[in-house]
Amino acid sequence: MDNCVFCKIVSGDIPSTVVYEDEDFKAIMDISPASRGHVIILTKNHFENLFELEDRCGSKLLPVARKIATAMKDELGCDGINFLQNNGKAAGQTVFHIHFHLIPRYKDDKVNISWTNNQYKDGEAAEIAERISKLI
Amino acid sequence: MDNCVFCKIVSGDIPSTVVYEDEDFKAIMDISPASRGHVIILTKNHFENLFELEDRCGSKLLPVARKIATAMKDELGCDGINFLQNNGKAAGQTVFHIHFHLIPRYKDDKVNISWTNNQYKDGEAAEIAERISKLI
Repeated sequence: MDNCVFCKIVSGDIPSTVVYEDEDFKAIMDISPASRGHVIILTKNHFENLFELEDRCGSKLLPVARKIATAMKDELGCDGINFLQNNGKAAGQTVFHIHFHLIPRYKDDKVNISWTNNQYKDGEAAEIAERISKLI
Repeated sequence: MDNCVFCKIVSGDIPSTVVYEDEDFKAIMDISPASRGHVIILTKNHFENLFELEDRCGSKLLPVARKIATAMKDELGCDGINFLQNNGKAAGQTVFHIHFHLIPRYKDDKVNISWTNNQYKDGEAAEIAERISKLI
């Protein structure tokens, strides 16, 4: 879809740090993480939200999220993970291409879930992604 | 599983207000809703969290969540919906039987997502559930 930043990430026109990819999904490091290791899973096809998500694609999502979350838990040493998907501006959706957050939680983190956007240091996201992707 | 409140809700030993049910899931009104119309989807089998969720069951979840969320949107007149699942105490999980929240969002709501527990008036949950269930 023209002018959709996540479609451009899926196509590679906008670079991203990829954690996992298959024929239906591309999981990347969030560039403004809520916490260390925050991943978002994008559908490759453009669906605005959960209401539009095709069942053929949706049925594959949970097994993929489970795999990625398990690798995150094993690698990051986090104390928990929030699985979150927002529909509509009122729910906090800011990019209107469906995406699923996997937010690692740490006992001392600042997530409440209406988070402020943190930033990775240069190279940090790539380093974490590499470690996670090896476990998937 | 013994002493699991959600297993007892699935079996009917603890009563609940059911929005949707099939062979794998039971979706009920949250009795301490974050907002009006807050639904939780329970797996019928006991899995503690996303890490333990069987793919056979997980693959059916998103199409069910889409159906329920669409009916909620159409019926409640909400401005958005959060789809949320918490893993681990640090992430806000309080019942250790996997469950997926569908939280309607309204422009004037107090959800941030670390919500305070509201209460339905007597009968209100049943009334909303009935209207929603007709659309599913």
